[in-house]
Amino acid sequence: MSNTATSTSAVEHSEAARAFLTDFRSMSTFGATAGGGVDRQAGTAADGQTRNWFRGLVEGHGFEVRYDAVGNQFALLELVPGAPYVALGSHLDSQPLGGRFDGAYGVLTAAHAAIRLQQVAEGAKFNIAVINWFNEEGCRFKPSMMGSSVFTGKLPADQVLQTTDPQGTTVREALESIGTIGDFSLDVAAYLEIHIEQGRSLENDGLTIGLVESTWGANKYEFVVHGEQAHTGATIIADRHDALLGASLLVAAARDIADEYSTEDHAVITSCGEFTVFPNSPVVVASRVNLLVDLRSTDPDVLATADAELHRRIAAIEQRASVSIERGAEHIWAAKAYDAAGMELAAASAETLGLSHGTVRTLAGHDSTNMKDIVPTIMLFVPSVEGISHNEKELTSDEDMLAGVDLFTELLGRVVRGEFV
Amino acid sequence: MSNTATSTSAVEHSEAARAFLTDFRSMSTFGATAGGGVDRQAGTAADGQTRNWFRGLVEGHGFEVRYDAVGNQFALLELVPGAPYVALGSHLDSQPLGGRFDGAYGVLTAAHAAIRLQQVAEGAKFNIAVINWFNEEGCRFKPSMMGSSVFTGKLPADQVLQTTDPQGTTVREALESIGTIGDFSLDVAAYLEIHIEQGRSLENDGLTIGLVESTWGANKYEFVVHGEQAHTGATIIADRHDALLGASLLVAAARDIADEYSTEDHAVITSCGEFTVFPNSPVVVASRVNLLVDLRSTDPDVLATADAELHRRIAAIEQRASVSIERGAEHIWAAKAYDAAGMELAAASAETLGLSHGTVRTLAGHDSTNMKDIVPTIMLFVPSVEGISHNEKELTSDEDMLAGVDLFTELLGRVVRGEFV
Repeated sequence: MSNTATSTSAVEHSEAARAFLTDFRSMSTFGATAGGGVDRQAGTAADGQTRNWFRGLVEGHGFEVRYDAVGNQFALLELVPGAPYVALGSHLDSQPLGGRFDGAYGVLTAAHAAIRLQQVAEGAKFNIAVINWFNEEGCRFKPSMMGSSVFTGKLPADQVLQTTDPQGTTVREALESIGTIGDFSLDVAAYLEIHIEQGRSLENDGLTIGLVESTWGANKYEFVVHGEQAHTGATIIADRHDALLGASLLVAAARDIADEYSTEDHAVITSCGEFTVFPNSPVVVASRVNLLVDLRSTDPDVLATADAELHRRIAAIEQRASVSIERGAEHIWAAKAYDAAGMELAAASAETLGLSHGTVRTLAGHDSTNMKDIVPTIMLFVPSVEGISHNEKELTSDEDMLAGVDLFTELLGRVVRGEFV
Repeated sequence: MSNTATSTSAVEHSEAARAFLTDFRSMSTFGATAGGGVDRQAGTAADGQTRNWFRGLVEGHGFEVRYDAVGNQFALLELVPGAPYVALGSHLDSQPLGGRFDGAYGVLTAAHAAIRLQQVAEGAKFNIAVINWFNEEGCRFKPSMMGSSVFTGKLPADQVLQTTDPQGTTVREALESIGTIGDFSLDVAAYLEIHIEQGRSLENDGLTIGLVESTWGANKYEFVVHGEQAHTGATIIADRHDALLGASLLVAAARDIADEYSTEDHAVITSCGEFTVFPNSPVVVASRVNLLVDLRSTDPDVLATADAELHRRIAAIEQRASVSIERGAEHIWAAKAYDAAGMELAAASAETLGLSHGTVRTLAGHDSTNMKDIVPTIMLFVPSVEGISHNEKELTSDEDMLAGVDLFTELLGRVVRGEFV
C-alpha cells in the first residue's frame, strides 16, 4: 500500500532507508522485553539508556544536545545562525510492556528527517530542534504528556519535579539519577510530529498517511472509593462497606455509558486503566480503591451528556455498595482542531511523493496536543497493524515506516523553507 | 455484661487478671500501627519479634519451646511425664492493618490458662502444649491456616516451604530469617481454641461466651481474567478485551448472588478480597486481573446452588467483556460440626463460673477448623464490639477478655483431668 518514491535519488534513498531501519532496531534494544516490546517508563534506567543512545546518534551528525528543567531533550541543528527554530519530535519513554513504535518512531523519524535535510538545506529560514519529550506516557509519574505540558505552560515545573512515583521517588530524583536535566529553554515557531496510529482507521481504509485534523475531548477523573476494612468470611453482607464492589460497579457503569451514549456520528469511549485495591488481602473486604476513569468523544455535547450520566450513577453505586465515592484530581482536554494550513501542506507533500493519505482524528493524547495550543502544529500518523497499541505486539511495517520518514523529510523541508509559518 | 467470678479467690484472680492485661498490652506493641492495630504478617520481622517475645514469656514460666518444619511454635508444659498432650492455641500473625485480638488473644489466653493451671494441677492426666500456628491469616503467603493445615496432613510441608510471597520470598526463607523453624512433632489428644468473634451475634444477644457448634462451608476460587493490553484512549470499544471490566462484572455478580440466593434460614456470603490488575497503568486497558472469589453458607445445598449460579454467569461475563475467565486453584471447606460433648463441657464450665453463653457458628476459618478433623476439638468465642474484624478498630473489652481467660482455665482444667477425652 506504500509508495517509497522520494525527491532524492534511488541510491541515496536506499542508503538512508537502511540507516533508518538499522537505527530503529538499535533503539528497540533498550528496555527490550521478552514479548518483543519495550519497557522504558519515564526516568528509569532504560529510559536513560535510550536517551543517551539518542544523544550519541544525533551528536554524531553534528547536533547539540540540551535538557530543560523537566528533562525534555533537545537536539539542535543550526542551519541559519540566529533564526527561529522549527521543533519536531515525540517521546522515547514507553508503557510497561509497551510497543517499539509508540513515540520512539516519531523521535527517530524527526532526527532522520533533519539529518537528511542537512544535505539539502538550501533556502532554509529556520533552525531545527528535534525534541524527545519527557514522560509522555504518564504511567510511572502522572499526568501523561508531562514534559510538553511544562514546556507549553500548562503545568508548573516545580510541581512536576516534586511529583512522586508509587515508590516515593520524585521526578527530580529520577531525572538526576539518569543525568538528563538542565536549564535549557527554546522559542519555537512551529511543531511537527509523526506517530503510529493507535487505532485501525488507516489500515481499514488502505491509506499510508493520516493527517490528524483534531483531538478528541477527554475528561479524566481520579476517584477514591472509601469503604471499611472487614473480614471476608465473618462480616455479614449487611455490615459491609465494600470499596471493591463500589469500584467494580463504577467500571461497569463507565462501559455501559460508552454503549448507551454513543451517537451515530460520535462515539463515546470510556476506560479505566488503573485500579488499585487496599489492603488487597485475600480475606479482607477492601477499605479503599483508587481508580482512574476517563471519557472521550469528538463531540463536546455528547461528551458532556455522557459525563453527566456517569456522575448521576455514582449516587446509586454509593448506596448499593454502602461506600462513599470521592472525586479527586481531574484533567479535562477539550476537542480541538489542528492547523488547517498545516494539514494542506502535509497533504501536498504526500501528493508530491505519491503517498495515499486521509484525514483522521486522534483519540489518544500526544505532545502535539499541547504544542498545537501555542504554535502552528502538524500531526501525522502511519498505519498500525490491527490497531494494537500499548502492547508489545504493536507493529508498523518497514515500508510504512519508511514512507513516513520520506514524507516527514519532504514536509520538514517545506516548513524550514518557510512554506508553513 | 460479663461476670468475672472464678473458682479461685478474689485476690488471686485480681493478680492473674492484671498479669494477663499487662502481657496483652506488651504483646500488642509488636507490629503496632498508628491506627491502634497491628501489622504482623506471617514470617515478617514483626511476626518474628512477637514469636520471640512469646517464647520469653512462657520460658519464664518453665515451658519448653519447640518449632516444627513449617514454623508452628509449641510451648510445652509437662505435668505428667510420658502422658499425651492436650493442645490449645491460636495464631500471633495478623492481617496488614489488622486488629490486636484476632488470634493473639487466643494464644495469650491459652498460655495464661496453662500458667494458672500449673499451680493447681492435681489429678492431671495430660501434658499441655500451647501452640502459635504459623500463618493463619494467609495474606502474605496463601492459603490461610497454613501451619495447622500441614500439622493435620492437609498440605504437604514441602509444598508450603516453597510457597512464595508476592516478592518471591519463600516460606522457608521467611522462617529462616526469623529463626523459627525446626523439626519438632507432637501427638495431641484434644485441641481447644478461644478467639474473638468475627461478627456481632454475641453482642446482639448480650452473651459473654460463644460455644462454636459448626463452621460454615466455603468455596474459594482463584480466577484469572485474560484480556488484551490496549490503549485506553485510542482503542475503540469494539476492539477491546478489557480484563478489568470482566473482573469487575465478576465482583458484581458475586454480590448479586449473595443477595439473590440467601434463603430465610441460610445466608450466602460472597466476597472478593484480592484483586490485582496488570499492567495497571493509567492509559492501558488491562490485559489480566487475578482475583479471589469465595462463597460461604452454613447449608451445603444453598452453597451448591449459589456456586452453580456463579459459574453459570461466567459465560455471559466473558462475552460482555470479550475476555476469557480461567479458574485456577480452589479451596473447598465443607460445613462441619464441632464435638458435641466438647460443647457440653464448655457450657458446664461457663455455668460453674456464672458466665452467660450461647451457641454460634463461625463464618471465618480457624486453626480449630483443621484440628477438629483429627482430634476432639472445642472452640469458644468472646464478644467483639460491633463485630469489627480484620480492622485496626477490632475490640473486645477487658472484662470480656478476662471472662474468656477464666473460662478457658476452668475448661482446660477439666480437659487435663480427663473429663473430655
